[in-house]
Amino acid sequence: MAALTDQNSAQAEGANVRQPVTGLSVTCMRCGSTFPGNRPFTVCPSCGGLLDADINLDQQLTPDAFAALIGTSEAFSGVWRFAQLLPPIPREHIVSRGEGNTPLYWDDRLAGYAGLTGGRFGIKHEGHNPTGSFKDRGMTVGVSHARAIGARALACASTGNTSASLASYAASAGLPALVIIPEGRISASKLSQTIAFGATVVQIDGDFDLALRLLRLLADTGAVYLANSVNPFRPEGQKTIVFEILEHFGWNVPDVIALPGGNLGNTAAFGKALSEAYQVGLIGTLPRIVTVQAAGAAPFAAYYESGFDHYAPVKAETIATAIKVGDPASVDRARRSIELTGGIVTTATDEELLDAKALIDRIGIGCEPASAASLAGIRKLVESGEIAPDATVVGVVTAHVLKDTDAIVAYHLNDGLDGNRRTFANRPLTIPAELDALQRVLDDAIHD
Amino acid sequence: MAALTDQNSAQAEGANVRQPVTGLSVTCMRCGSTFPGNRPFTVCPSCGGLLDADINLDQQLTPDAFAALIGTSEAFSGVWRFAQLLPPIPREHIVSRGEGNTPLYWDDRLAGYAGLTGGRFGIKHEGHNPTGSFKDRGMTVGVSHARAIGARALACASTGNTSASLASYAASAGLPALVIIPEGRISASKLSQTIAFGATVVQIDGDFDLALRLLRLLADTGAVYLANSVNPFRPEGQKTIVFEILEHFGWNVPDVIALPGGNLGNTAAFGKALSEAYQVGLIGTLPRIVTVQAAGAAPFAAYYESGFDHYAPVKAETIATAIKVGDPASVDRARRSIELTGGIVTTATDEELLDAKALIDRIGIGCEPASAASLAGIRKLVESGEIAPDATVVGVVTAHVLKDTDAIVAYHLNDGLDGNRRTFANRPLTIPAELDALQRVLDDAIHD
Repeated sequence: MAALTDQNSAQAEGANVRQPVTGLSVTCMRCGSTFPGNRPFTVCPSCGGLLDADINLDQQLTPDAFAALIGTSEAFSGVWRFAQLLPPIPREHIVSRGEGNTPLYWDDRLAGYAGLTGGRFGIKHEGHNPTGSFKDRGMTVGVSHARAIGARALACASTGNTSASLASYAASAGLPALVIIPEGRISASKLSQTIAFGATVVQIDGDFDLALRLLRLLADTGAVYLANSVNPFRPEGQKTIVFEILEHFGWNVPDVIALPGGNLGNTAAFGKALSEAYQVGLIGTLPRIVTVQAAGAAPFAAYYESGFDHYAPVKAETIATAIKVGDPASVDRARRSIELTGGIVTTATDEELLDAKALIDRIGIGCEPASAASLAGIRKLVESGEIAPDATVVGVVTAHVLKDTDAIVAYHLNDGLDGNRRTFANRPLTIPAELDALQRVLDDAIHD
Repeated sequence: MAALTDQNSAQAEGANVRQPVTGLSVTCMRCGSTFPGNRPFTVCPSCGGLLDADINLDQQLTPDAFAALIGTSEAFSGVWRFAQLLPPIPREHIVSRGEGNTPLYWDDRLAGYAGLTGGRFGIKHEGHNPTGSFKDRGMTVGVSHARAIGARALACASTGNTSASLASYAASAGLPALVIIPEGRISASKLSQTIAFGATVVQIDGDFDLALRLLRLLADTGAVYLANSVNPFRPEGQKTIVFEILEHFGWNVPDVIALPGGNLGNTAAFGKALSEAYQVGLIGTLPRIVTVQAAGAAPFAAYYESGFDHYAPVKAETIATAIKVGDPASVDRARRSIELTGGIVTTATDEELLDAKALIDRIGIGCEPASAASLAGIRKLVESGEIAPDATVVGVVTAHVLKDTDAIVAYHLNDGLDGNRRTFANRPLTIPAELDALQRVLDDAIHD
């Protein structure tokens, strides 16, 4: 698998030549139509439904299928070492940055905060991916697919983690990336990685909807590969978060896997991963999926509350920008995951998210605000009795603390909405340059 | 090795009780005195020289000693899986966040920029550590040692990557951390991780020297464990960067390992690692170590130029803050590494650093400015003929691109010193919301 660690040598040739790709197909989850996977897709050409990449489920697998010695090229990617449960993209087209293989941290302080008195709370930390978010797991599959089908350029509409990840993987592949931003939404600090990775950042005089509509028109001409969130190949990479969690448990399952919900791509991918792991014989039971939305951007939680009877988009409002989505792209796929696993959808307020984030930071782990939804949501569900206090819970944390340093400064140095210091606020001190003063600060820290 | 993945359960007890630790010792590289390693150390109590942690070299090792299956607890830390070449700190005291196991990226575009026409250039990316820099490799050993000897608190004087790493590992261990900052040096964005991880940040009315002097006085009373850069245990963790590089080559060696040089802790650690790997039979030859300093902070390069005859501190001036050091702490240890490996010390100007960084970013990898010294320095040495164009070079990149997003904005959106756009500048565009305009941008990007 030398291509994984030596991508650049393979990529000069072929980038402009449309490749024949066999064995790839996608199926519409609504109408059941199947299409060859040799071109870019957004939604079903027949009915507009969401597409799933097809996986070979006529195989029985054992954990040995994924064993790899660390330091070898097989172990380089925590996505591609699960190739047998991914779309069969030819190896020579794979664009990898060594994504995945992320840590799972157990900490009693998190379990205590969540109210898991006889239980455990572990963090599967997806911020430990190359560009600092879980997006890299999906992007390695999406960009590899784009290369395999001979795409000449990639594009997305995003101001955040998706654009950073797309820009990085496109640059690795030697392909141009176009990132479209609505007017007035350029924030140099949020876009810094995207700019650094050489994507062409284009601001248009219009809103997000218009930006996406223009991109779709351009994609329909075959001019660009659209790496947006309904792309059926990106969730395939995100499935490997679940595979690594199962591997951590020796291919048994925790009671609950909790995760933040915005566009719901992960909720969709996690259900597909569990279903497939079950069908090929890797696991014998399923954990419950718990999706946690920000209270101000919770159309899926409302849909769940209605017994999946009534769905309505909302105007999204939350400080957790990574999950600030009023009309999630993957609602139908995500519903399937919740129903499959007897899952739960819940919400957390901005203040609850910020406190949970501050605690995850405080114990030395760190994450961006949206990532803390997993912990904040479980705390509420344990309190309400919907999750047992002796449960073993894995909370997925989606991005690195360095993704949003402004949020840190705002939380610790400013007061909360009620005018008081926030729960875990930590403000720098100023003291005279004297040993006694320093000793007093130290004593306070030790007895805190 | 459950303690590695479940630290918190072990840490409540013992934190305030001084533990007996056997088998740990340090030796002064100047006077040769040996001391038991059961207390905090800065320099040799006899002569003030630099101390080395003692390693068992009366063993012959094969690569099998470090083999670990990914997903197992043995593979969780890229530092502790090399335990046989580290100080024998008892497992129950180890504080790990899953540091190390970082990627090594090969890319022809970097080799081309460096002038390595028949050769190769690979990036060993230490930004892919938990807090975003190589400091985590040293800190896991330093903080574990602190716990093993019963330290009640840790401290350092730093405004950057060291303080972020110390704060994270101390929080993981459940120990308080004190970070002392000179007056007027508080930058909320640089200190954001340190604040988030709950360290007590203390500003004193004095400069860095006074801050360090106060800390040393406090450390001498036994009140805190000083995790500063002459600590002999931190370099032990940094040695594992070299072990992983050697492992990547199947325990053969590249021609050159290049790295940035500030306080010179890595240069020191790399030589010790190579010497030890050679002595226990893992490798039969040594690569050359190339240390690259910022031109405005290059006392070690001047020392090298003088044939290691005359050393003088300088007043440091460079945009590369991570290597802005006028009087490096580890000069003597670093000299030993250069002499051992027939190494070279050179410099790169700020503009050279910024262009090299922009290229590393541009190909989708990314790093902070100081990290690019490896590439910028090798480019100069190939041009001058000191490194052969067919050499295989591994350049160590020390921190993640997200560590300094201000530098990205400054490079791409502002002009260079000569008033022109910088070499790799990438500025966002604004266009009308029309398909034709978007198509033209796309065409430009494809033909760039």
